[in-house]
Amino acid sequence: MFTGLSAFPLTPTTETGIDEKAFATLVGRLATAGVDSIGALGSTGSYAYLTREERARTARIAVEHAERTPVIVGIGALRTRHVLEVAEDAQRAGVSGVLLAPVSYQPLTEDEVFGLFEDVTANLSVPLVVYDNPRTTHFTFTDELYARVAELPRVASIKIPGVPADPAAARARVQRLRQILPGDVTVGVSGDAFGATGLNAGCDAWYSVLGGTFPGPALAITRAARSGDAEGARAESRRLQPLWDLFTQHGSPRVIAEAAAHIGLTPPRGLPLPLRGLDADGRAQVAEVLEQLRLNA
Amino acid sequence: MFTGLSAFPLTPTTETGIDEKAFATLVGRLATAGVDSIGALGSTGSYAYLTREERARTARIAVEHAERTPVIVGIGALRTRHVLEVAEDAQRAGVSGVLLAPVSYQPLTEDEVFGLFEDVTANLSVPLVVYDNPRTTHFTFTDELYARVAELPRVASIKIPGVPADPAAARARVQRLRQILPGDVTVGVSGDAFGATGLNAGCDAWYSVLGGTFPGPALAITRAARSGDAEGARAESRRLQPLWDLFTQHGSPRVIAEAAAHIGLTPPRGLPLPLRGLDADGRAQVAEVLEQLRLNA
Repeated sequence: MFTGLSAFPLTPTTETGIDEKAFATLVGRLATAGVDSIGALGSTGSYAYLTREERARTARIAVEHAERTPVIVGIGALRTRHVLEVAEDAQRAGVSGVLLAPVSYQPLTEDEVFGLFEDVTANLSVPLVVYDNPRTTHFTFTDELYARVAELPRVASIKIPGVPADPAAARARVQRLRQILPGDVTVGVSGDAFGATGLNAGCDAWYSVLGGTFPGPALAITRAARSGDAEGARAESRRLQPLWDLFTQHGSPRVIAEAAAHIGLTPPRGLPLPLRGLDADGRAQVAEVLEQLRLNA
Repeated sequence: MFTGLSAFPLTPTTETGIDEKAFATLVGRLATAGVDSIGALGSTGSYAYLTREERARTARIAVEHAERTPVIVGIGALRTRHVLEVAEDAQRAGVSGVLLAPVSYQPLTEDEVFGLFEDVTANLSVPLVVYDNPRTTHFTFTDELYARVAELPRVASIKIPGVPADPAAARARVQRLRQILPGDVTVGVSGDAFGATGLNAGCDAWYSVLGGTFPGPALAITRAARSGDAEGARAESRRLQPLWDLFTQHGSPRVIAEAAAHIGLTPPRGLPLPLRGLDADGRAQVAEVLEQLRLNA
């Protein structure tokens, strides 16, 4: 399950709740496209901003509309007790796996992060993806901590925040991770600009923002790389460079939310305040890039 | 109200709830000591880890036990909607002011932070302290943003994350803030090691972790500085240097939680998981420093 393309849809929100119909459509679209798993309620899915009830309801809708595609949901929260509650709700909803980032307010120590994963995996009956996203958690895993956490029961995959841009360095990095991780723990790359390089370097999975809204090009990259066509994967990723540049400039959630709204998949301004949509200039940039990349259909 | 010593007590927590009796004792102790205001549910008070219900209940207890001392409570949350809910609960509890930090998961833009303060102050009937704490929010205010936010209605004070260590540079910094802020907006220093230097440099208030558990020495520094005895304030702060060093080494919440437990004010391990208390070595360090500073009574 933790191989291939894991596609992370938005959770379209309004100030009064979740647009459940738009979310169900996003999830159904991914199942139809044939992604390998659906990563609902990831960072792209605004999990950190939603209440326990909203998260439980969203997990149920995801499972219901994913058909036979496995659903993984984000269970991160600032407090361990709340992580455990959300994990229980997610399992009741029938998810196939969970994704846990060490979300922080007070900066966390290594032992605190290990303790979090220990406490959560001890209470879990589905596999867990370790979610390393320093941009949002402000915690940086060491390789030693990856290795310690990966030995815990239920840990099935590590979602790393990128690989070196140089293909040889990326391959060395993935090989190094293989050496320190148990053989049954997969390595998945995230940070969409690193997707092709990561897969070409031997990552098992791509945890993808793009794939959650535009599964077509994300599947093309994944299938090319996984079948040994490294240059095909690279070429498609290069073609998408204007989109990666917008992700860097504005943050991927703002860009992908605007892109999904632009093509009519979600209502406008679908991020929870205080996050705001792009301004008129940003919206125009997104429209132009979508047209240039022929993603505006 | 936003001058002098604002003392920030812990909110002693267990995995099942809040130790309301210990919290009431902490608050009563501050009122008796004569602090100028009580900053309940600040970072030291673990606000970011508590549920809406826990925060409402804690605010009510604080107001009840603060007697005539004004209570300010932290209303920060990742989502604007949740900030508004917590603010409403706090006002119903009878607080005299609120404290708002731009807590983030996705990194926030300047316009998003301004929008947050705009939305919150538009719905507020008590004064607000702008809480700038990059260590926990991962957002850095510019002086321009301070000035924009300070023009909003209800904004009464800015809690800055420190001042330069050099007295002349600190004084220049505070003078610069005076120039850009409306005359009725006070400047309060935080980061306890900066307390004396900040007050000596002209800050109106000290938002203090130490003061929430040990009001005596914090009041001594504040009164010395505010009455023009700069050297007295400096000397007492210098005496407390071993404590500031522990704050730097372990983070102030872990140290002050251990200190409060050590002198029997709170039960042991009073921080919400995943935060953990100090290990045996850290606990021994705290015990030694408290004895050395004669704070173990």
